[in-house]
Amino acid sequence: MSRCTSKFVRKNVNMIFKCLILNLLWKYTFSEYTFDIKYSDVPVDHFTIQNKTFKLRYLINGDYHVKGGPVFLYTGNEGNIFMFAQNTGFMFDIAPVFNALVVFIEHRYYGESLPFGNQSNTPENLRFLTSSQALADYVHVIEELRKTYFATILTNDTLPVVSFGGSYGGMLAAWLRMKYPTSVIGAIASSAPIWYFRNMIPCEKFYEIVTGVFEKFGTAQCTNIIKASWEILRNVTKTSSGMKHLYETWRICETFGNATDVEKLVDWLSDIYVNMAMTNYHYPTNFIVPLPAYPVKTFCDKLVSLNSTDPLSTLANLGKALTVYTNYTGSTLCNSINSTSKYLGEYTWDYQACTELVMPICSTNKDMFETQPWDEKKYSEECSKKYGVSNSRPDWIVSEYGGKNLKYFSNIVFSNGMMDPWSCGGVTTNISSNIWAVNITDGVHHSDLRSADPADTNYVIEARKFHVKSIKKWLNMF
Amino acid sequence: MSRCTSKFVRKNVNMIFKCLILNLLWKYTFSEYTFDIKYSDVPVDHFTIQNKTFKLRYLINGDYHVKGGPVFLYTGNEGNIFMFAQNTGFMFDIAPVFNALVVFIEHRYYGESLPFGNQSNTPENLRFLTSSQALADYVHVIEELRKTYFATILTNDTLPVVSFGGSYGGMLAAWLRMKYPTSVIGAIASSAPIWYFRNMIPCEKFYEIVTGVFEKFGTAQCTNIIKASWEILRNVTKTSSGMKHLYETWRICETFGNATDVEKLVDWLSDIYVNMAMTNYHYPTNFIVPLPAYPVKTFCDKLVSLNSTDPLSTLANLGKALTVYTNYTGSTLCNSINSTSKYLGEYTWDYQACTELVMPICSTNKDMFETQPWDEKKYSEECSKKYGVSNSRPDWIVSEYGGKNLKYFSNIVFSNGMMDPWSCGGVTTNISSNIWAVNITDGVHHSDLRSADPADTNYVIEARKFHVKSIKKWLNMF
Repeated sequence: MSRCTSKFVRKNVNMIFKCLILNLLWKYTFSEYTFDIKYSDVPVDHFTIQNKTFKLRYLINGDYHVKGGPVFLYTGNEGNIFMFAQNTGFMFDIAPVFNALVVFIEHRYYGESLPFGNQSNTPENLRFLTSSQALADYVHVIEELRKTYFATILTNDTLPVVSFGGSYGGMLAAWLRMKYPTSVIGAIASSAPIWYFRNMIPCEKFYEIVTGVFEKFGTAQCTNIIKASWEILRNVTKTSSGMKHLYETWRICETFGNATDVEKLVDWLSDIYVNMAMTNYHYPTNFIVPLPAYPVKTFCDKLVSLNSTDPLSTLANLGKALTVYTNYTGSTLCNSINSTSKYLGEYTWDYQACTELVMPICSTNKDMFETQPWDEKKYSEECSKKYGVSNSRPDWIVSEYGGKNLKYFSNIVFSNGMMDPWSCGGVTTNISSNIWAVNITDGVHHSDLRSADPADTNYVIEARKFHVKSIKKWLNMF
Repeated sequence: MSRCTSKFVRKNVNMIFKCLILNLLWKYTFSEYTFDIKYSDVPVDHFTIQNKTFKLRYLINGDYHVKGGPVFLYTGNEGNIFMFAQNTGFMFDIAPVFNALVVFIEHRYYGESLPFGNQSNTPENLRFLTSSQALADYVHVIEELRKTYFATILTNDTLPVVSFGGSYGGMLAAWLRMKYPTSVIGAIASSAPIWYFRNMIPCEKFYEIVTGVFEKFGTAQCTNIIKASWEILRNVTKTSSGMKHLYETWRICETFGNATDVEKLVDWLSDIYVNMAMTNYHYPTNFIVPLPAYPVKTFCDKLVSLNSTDPLSTLANLGKALTVYTNYTGSTLCNSINSTSKYLGEYTWDYQACTELVMPICSTNKDMFETQPWDEKKYSEECSKKYGVSNSRPDWIVSEYGGKNLKYFSNIVFSNGMMDPWSCGGVTTNISSNIWAVNITDGVHHSDLRSADPADTNYVIEARKFHVKSIKKWLNMF
């Protein structure tokens, strides 16, 4: 499961809170932006007749908003909404151009938006966690914005809304436009693998792209070491002394002594490689974890320089090279192999990945990962064990969101970094005059949604220009 | 409630069953058409994670189907699916032109498609009765057709489907295209009042159109008598002897003795006027009930000829004139004022009209009905009393289906009979080059979906031609 779960947006957050109660409204500040924090009473279930509601959190920034301007709406993904607000500077960068109000809506079951409070994560209570419900939440908030927040600002109830999102949030931004074209006039869907589902992509593509990034930014020697390391790791962990060696040299937080722990470690290690490829930005970032510019290159350089032929030394060296990712700031005391993020709802996301959003992934001998076929049945059994449910309708997502047939939809820009493994599940060719694909040659995971940076290449700058042009067109159509 | 509930398609059915079990598949024949009866296991709730399913019934006719031909899919409305199959001859009339397979899907909670068997109508179990769930049911069956039924006929999994529907079924046909444009290539939505909701139409329009039909096909004298009859009826029913008089002369089936009974009678009477206007076809029909050609004219002629000044005689005469509607065949023993149809799920439809599909209706002194304002609060209270629930989200339908803003949708023909009271809630002007309105000047309730008849006027013939042309265009696009 974790193979499929920790690859989405991972953000590390340093928050500075400035809280003051103002009618049920809190102010929150980070960097230069201040948000009004609001809560909407949304139905727990939009699609049956029932009256239960819960408080969905959303953030509003009006720094650049001028009467008549649109709403830029971020459709929150699998984590605390503040992380997305902090890592989507592009919306703020272009807000002044459009006089836009900037809004971030939290996804149900993440952050503070818990339908059943601290009981939200039971299998019974998790059942309302579906993309359809999340989209309906967003529409509910849009209606609320139209009716209440804007009642004093706008002369009528029309209000152009543009949806933005990255990764799963990008899928939601696109799906929102597809399912509710009268609620949002268009969508900027960045690194949105809307086709990363059954029968739509070859499962081996993902790890092949990761491997390609390591080959390009590291060397073939780097990927060869990684490729060879799996067997070494399996052999070393066959003995308790080997386990102990790994536990100590890799500074693992948890107890580490049985086969399950080894599986966890393998998943964690795979995830780190994936995360490094996804966030192989041209400049230092603090996204999933604090990282230098081109972390893959930094990691590979270190790994190759430390190369050894002895199995134990090889693993110890790998552990040292990994500190590029695990301890760039030098403040990490030990490495938890249970998680790669403390800000995202990993257990909750795993539920989604087990039920509605099953994304087939596999590794072959063409990539640097340990070979592992995609086994839908086994995956499903693991899900049943963990949550008591699994995906009983494997083709639901295709039916619900149209699969590869997008020609009847309009006003969506799908942008992908071609160095981002998730691009293999994204829309990378133009579909029509209204559905565009923007491929950022040297981009990684939603590079275009980040704030402008001096190290930005022309590719990402052009992508952002395309977004601005598209939004202008949609507003003119509106 | 009943004011709003008995105005949709009402069909009287004489069925001839020819049942033979053939692997879980029954054959059913009426008129010249034979159907395969099939059942699909559809999820009780499509939008939460759960595994419960129930059997949804659908009918297939392949008389005109040739490999490669499209599916003509009727999106069933609030009743037994056989009624709709029997009253939508247009689909069979044009099936040979397209080599089409004809399919009728039953709406959940009606006919045999009961999610909880004979326990389906409890307030708790009814909660899964929403339009969104019904649409997802249809998509589920379409997928099933693609995968199983057509696996042996088609070379690949592509299959063009055109949705058809009349009245509420027409709303569903249009909404299916709007929400699932990759599942259906286009929709023929006849007499579909998709705008008959809050803040979208003036509530008095409906009864004004009914009155207009009575003025046009009867005379002003006819509507004057009807208009005056309400006060007479109220006065006469103040005494028990008056009640007895009405009970006897109108041949009421039920006990009839208190104020509630009078309210029921008033609603029943209003519904009959509405039904006569809706089904004021140019030729004899057996739709809601068996009726002569132009029933409104026949009724008015009789009523005017029997005119009297005495209150009791006036009501007795009204009762006699009503037999045009209540006893055209001469076989009615008594009149039940609890219902106007034994084939439709009225209690179930009332639930929909109380929750998701609240349609504001009122009468003023400009029409022939008893004056009654639209009182949303009172309506809601009555719903709460009956079902324990009411419409807690009055603007949901507008959010979910886009309200009057249809410009982003495509491939829908909205046809309306301009003599049909429901046309006031329909789309009667072209929206775009892909969303067309076809107004049938002398048409009533989905006249165009009925089989061709020698008495058809050019208006309805032209409408049908437009449908054929549109379907051809959609198929070419596909």
